[in-house]
Amino acid sequence: MTNVEVKVAEVISVGSELLLGDILNSNGQYLAQELAKLGIAHYYQTTVGDNPERLQQAIELAASRANLLIFTGGLGPTPDDLTTETIANTFQTALVERAEVWNDIQAKFAQRGRTLTDNNRKQALLPEGADILKNPVGTAPGMIWSPQPHLLILTFPGVPSEMKRMWQDIAVPLLKAQGWSADVIASRILRFWGVSESALAEKVSHLFEQANPTVAPYSNWGEVKLRISAKAPTTDAAMALIAPMEAEIRDIAGIDCFGADAQSLGTAVGALLQQRQETLAVAESCTGGGLGSYLTEIPGSSQYFHGGVIAYDNSVKQSLLDVSAADLAQLGAVSEAVAKQMAQGVRDRLGTTWGLSITGVAGPDGGTPDKPVGCVYIGVAGPVNVMAKRYQFGARGRDWVRRVSVCSALDQLRRACITTPFHLD
Amino acid sequence: MTNVEVKVAEVISVGSELLLGDILNSNGQYLAQELAKLGIAHYYQTTVGDNPERLQQAIELAASRANLLIFTGGLGPTPDDLTTETIANTFQTALVERAEVWNDIQAKFAQRGRTLTDNNRKQALLPEGADILKNPVGTAPGMIWSPQPHLLILTFPGVPSEMKRMWQDIAVPLLKAQGWSADVIASRILRFWGVSESALAEKVSHLFEQANPTVAPYSNWGEVKLRISAKAPTTDAAMALIAPMEAEIRDIAGIDCFGADAQSLGTAVGALLQQRQETLAVAESCTGGGLGSYLTEIPGSSQYFHGGVIAYDNSVKQSLLDVSAADLAQLGAVSEAVAKQMAQGVRDRLGTTWGLSITGVAGPDGGTPDKPVGCVYIGVAGPVNVMAKRYQFGARGRDWVRRVSVCSALDQLRRACITTPFHLD
Repeated sequence: MTNVEVKVAEVISVGSELLLGDILNSNGQYLAQELAKLGIAHYYQTTVGDNPERLQQAIELAASRANLLIFTGGLGPTPDDLTTETIANTFQTALVERAEVWNDIQAKFAQRGRTLTDNNRKQALLPEGADILKNPVGTAPGMIWSPQPHLLILTFPGVPSEMKRMWQDIAVPLLKAQGWSADVIASRILRFWGVSESALAEKVSHLFEQANPTVAPYSNWGEVKLRISAKAPTTDAAMALIAPMEAEIRDIAGIDCFGADAQSLGTAVGALLQQRQETLAVAESCTGGGLGSYLTEIPGSSQYFHGGVIAYDNSVKQSLLDVSAADLAQLGAVSEAVAKQMAQGVRDRLGTTWGLSITGVAGPDGGTPDKPVGCVYIGVAGPVNVMAKRYQFGARGRDWVRRVSVCSALDQLRRACITTPFHLD
Repeated sequence: MTNVEVKVAEVISVGSELLLGDILNSNGQYLAQELAKLGIAHYYQTTVGDNPERLQQAIELAASRANLLIFTGGLGPTPDDLTTETIANTFQTALVERAEVWNDIQAKFAQRGRTLTDNNRKQALLPEGADILKNPVGTAPGMIWSPQPHLLILTFPGVPSEMKRMWQDIAVPLLKAQGWSADVIASRILRFWGVSESALAEKVSHLFEQANPTVAPYSNWGEVKLRISAKAPTTDAAMALIAPMEAEIRDIAGIDCFGADAQSLGTAVGALLQQRQETLAVAESCTGGGLGSYLTEIPGSSQYFHGGVIAYDNSVKQSLLDVSAADLAQLGAVSEAVAKQMAQGVRDRLGTTWGLSITGVAGPDGGTPDKPVGCVYIGVAGPVNVMAKRYQFGARGRDWVRRVSVCSALDQLRRACITTPFHLD
């Protein structure tokens, strides 16, 4: 069935842990998205365990109906990591140790002060004729191998961070250079906070019927997204189709749209603060550091983020944030007054332009009729005033309440920044 | 290849949205876990798009090597939902409308005040001879069908909530009643920190050859795991096979093993602190609140975690943690002295048993020859002393450095707790 004109990929995920359900196969989704972006057709994904006979059967089948085989998993140092040798056996090719890989493994172990074992040496073996697909992150390299005409094999470790890095750094440029990517599908994702999916969908419903570009809504953890996708011979041509659609949606959505693609609420707030040359400190109760952690995911955030106080225990709210003991006793830690004092306290103590606070009931316990699980107060202290707002995120689990609290706090600060004139201090 | 003695399942997920990466295939993991619980062997999972020829190829292959075929997806009302009719075509059987299903669909639409379309009637069609697999949640029923001897087909909608409900309510009792679940596979996952996968594998290599229970290693984000799996007529019997193996591994691994199954480094540290009636505060620089956030993921963590200081900017290290300005200037924020002072400072300020600090170079910028990206100091201040340790996590990305720093800090505290006598304060 292999056809040189039609280029078809197939993804094979290897690992008994996948068949036992110990691990969610997120690599499958990632590669599916990436192949779609490149415009490479892709008709099957197979998951198979650490069993050489069954893996070989999957390889033979895939090679009979596809000409780009992408493997993830089974490249580790242990005896049940069988992907490389099974591929070599399927195409009756010997494995050869690569000095370059072995040196790299030795160097990585030395750098981390770890002891090499005989097992690790196995990772330096690749089929004769295969090229090394370098792994800049971990020890297991992959391979780039064409064991027969019109068949290209790429192997990646199962660890998503390593696989993604190798895919982006090496596989994508290689596939483009080899002409795998004829028509390009480009996408742009517009991101929204503070508006529901159905409310936004209604506002832009006239766009959903279009064929190229297409617009599709989705939502995840309180955030709403619109994906605009266009197909064209080049990325530039596809982006030119997307641009007017994006402009129209941004015009309709207004302040609810906080960014696009990799822009998060954190980078949106960071860009605003940098542009305004302002600084931020946080005071966190129920999120326990999650807001600070989210802000500092961003390289360079030290330019505007100074730090803060994790005031999980009420004693810390008093000692490090100057929250009134009387208010804590009478109004409770989850209250408008305490949220305001936390925001003001951290702003004063750290001497920043803005103080941002979160105090709420993350659950599963601790809810009351007045303040049920999911009740969260977010405070913003700034150059003009200090305010706090009550949210009811619902008893949808501790993770949900904490994560949505972090995003809502950033969104509240974003809106406060946008509506506050510069340099009032 | 079908063998009546050996019962083997295969999972086929249908939907072009899976191959475009729009949806993560969480059903695959769920069914894998469920089949493992039932002790039903399961060697392949296949994902295929909404294409009848390719779906039929997948069905024929699965029927040739398994005797329980489980389908998810493709049962909806739209023309691209093709699972039911393709299965019927593969086994050359006519579709027949089921009055019971059609009545149920009409009733559900009436109840929700929605308008029926002709498309919906398609969902009432099932192959002649198939039983209805009722859907108590949505409109699409599945089927229970044995089109030929020693072959059982079950179909489920792709929506996870509907699939799971139908699986639990109907499929699990059916499979047990039909004797599919003769043997149970139970697993226990032992979890390790501070030892490499290959070093641990070498220590327990004599266990990898065993057939029942089996032992398999894997690793993820710096954590190493050993999965012990046993097959037996009941879960209790399987766990009885696992117990001595677990004891042997724990004996070999010693303090490197921090827990099993759902126990994380966070819950392990939490259990130690609760048992010792001790408390903890954190001082974070490069992790920016990630350690506090990780600790407070755990409900009830307020019993031992009081809070801390996010000292991202050096001014905060001085003002809220009493770190020496001279040391910051001469030794730098990433140094043993500063890590110790941060741990001691937060312990003193918050009045806790333990103070735990992290200061390092998360990257991508900020590395120097002396302190390259990935260089992190972790400090522990306790009842006996204060110490700090230097780690080199490598330039494997900001996320990696920050996440491994948080886990290493917890592990360092865990080891300090275990080796420190109770109640010294």
